[in-house]
Amino acid sequence: MKFQILTLFPELHPGPLASSITGRALERNLWELHAVNIRDYAGDRHKSVDDVPFGGGAGMVMKPDVLAAACGAFADLGRAIYLSPRGRPLTQSIVQELAGEKLLTLLCGRYEGVDQRVLDAYQFEEISIGDYVLTNGDLAAHILIDAAVRLLPDVLGNAETAGEESFSNGLLEYPHYTRPAEWVDDRGCTHHVPDILLSGHHAKINQWRHQKSLELTAARRPDLLNRR
Amino acid sequence: MKFQILTLFPELHPGPLASSITGRALERNLWELHAVNIRDYAGDRHKSVDDVPFGGGAGMVMKPDVLAAACGAFADLGRAIYLSPRGRPLTQSIVQELAGEKLLTLLCGRYEGVDQRVLDAYQFEEISIGDYVLTNGDLAAHILIDAAVRLLPDVLGNAETAGEESFSNGLLEYPHYTRPAEWVDDRGCTHHVPDILLSGHHAKINQWRHQKSLELTAARRPDLLNRR
Repeated sequence: MKFQILTLFPELHPGPLASSITGRALERNLWELHAVNIRDYAGDRHKSVDDVPFGGGAGMVMKPDVLAAACGAFADLGRAIYLSPRGRPLTQSIVQELAGEKLLTLLCGRYEGVDQRVLDAYQFEEISIGDYVLTNGDLAAHILIDAAVRLLPDVLGNAETAGEESFSNGLLEYPHYTRPAEWVDDRGCTHHVPDILLSGHHAKINQWRHQKSLELTAARRPDLLNRR
Repeated sequence: MKFQILTLFPELHPGPLASSITGRALERNLWELHAVNIRDYAGDRHKSVDDVPFGGGAGMVMKPDVLAAACGAFADLGRAIYLSPRGRPLTQSIVQELAGEKLLTLLCGRYEGVDQRVLDAYQFEEISIGDYVLTNGDLAAHILIDAAVRLLPDVLGNAETAGEESFSNGLLEYPHYTRPAEWVDDRGCTHHVPDILLSGHHAKINQWRHQKSLELTAARRPDLLNRR
């Protein structure tokens, strides 16, 4: 799986993704990344990548001609995605879909946004990682790449798993407990693990976990239950 | 505003947040960050931070005693947040609320998750940046910090703005256009800016932008319209 990044800060990529699970997968060539600096495609001597918005208003907008020239750096864009709070919200099922792609191009915005005509002309699909505003799309690209790469074959080790986890069955995950079975906190209070988890009765444990998932989802995310 | 990070990868912080807008704000002491390595608080000679889950199942769980000891590194946790897909979904209004805090402690998980007893004992509030699963909470911490820091006074410059943007009025943002007014793409097609934006008629421009915001939100995120 190959990610092409259009960015004003190529030095941010792979950035944190060079560590740990995604970093080992990168070294093993389970995925690859090619970041292009949009500024290298600016035509004027000031290397301008943005200009004031038509119609007025605050903020600067990334220029269509420069963005188009930067897109031209790649022979093929594959599936082209613009990371933007205006986009379709990223979900685990979209991540699964993206993890099946061979080639993704991620456009990372800065400033107020990018000229709409480029999004239209290159048919960028807009994806949002959440209902909040960031200073840049580069961080959103890290999120999308991390979520997709962990689903690629051979990426996750034994300490992690993409099996039972939040959203795998449309529910939030049940609570986890590990040793010590009796943990004494710094105020001297003893915290026990639920007895059922120590029972060795796997069918009952699975039942308890499913019940906890349902309760947690009902309490925190009734919208997920309705969607099931 | 101070962020305290509990992590297994302290070298990831501030990471990408050392660049650009958030980086300049960090240099100007508009926010600060203190990352603590959870592994430094492991009690055994193998520096174990995780163990197998009670009740069986794949993956490893971060140990309560080690996490509690790491929490003890800070005199005060302030508002304690565990970044987890099980949490309350982060929204721009929660970001605004968080940007008003003086002290936030962010627990970044790895592996399968953390022992539930620590979350209960320290009253960690669970926040999710979106309905997908990541290899780690460190990337989610970047998102939360970036979104909050940009709302702090004096952080955004002229090229950016926290005024009219997605979610500021409960709607997705209208499309942006900048120079050139006529952009010719590499296939020779000319793309024009909507006439209204060149008219200089500010009331009509605002009306057009509001209409576009409404249309875009209705098409992509009818759930946001229902919430208004």
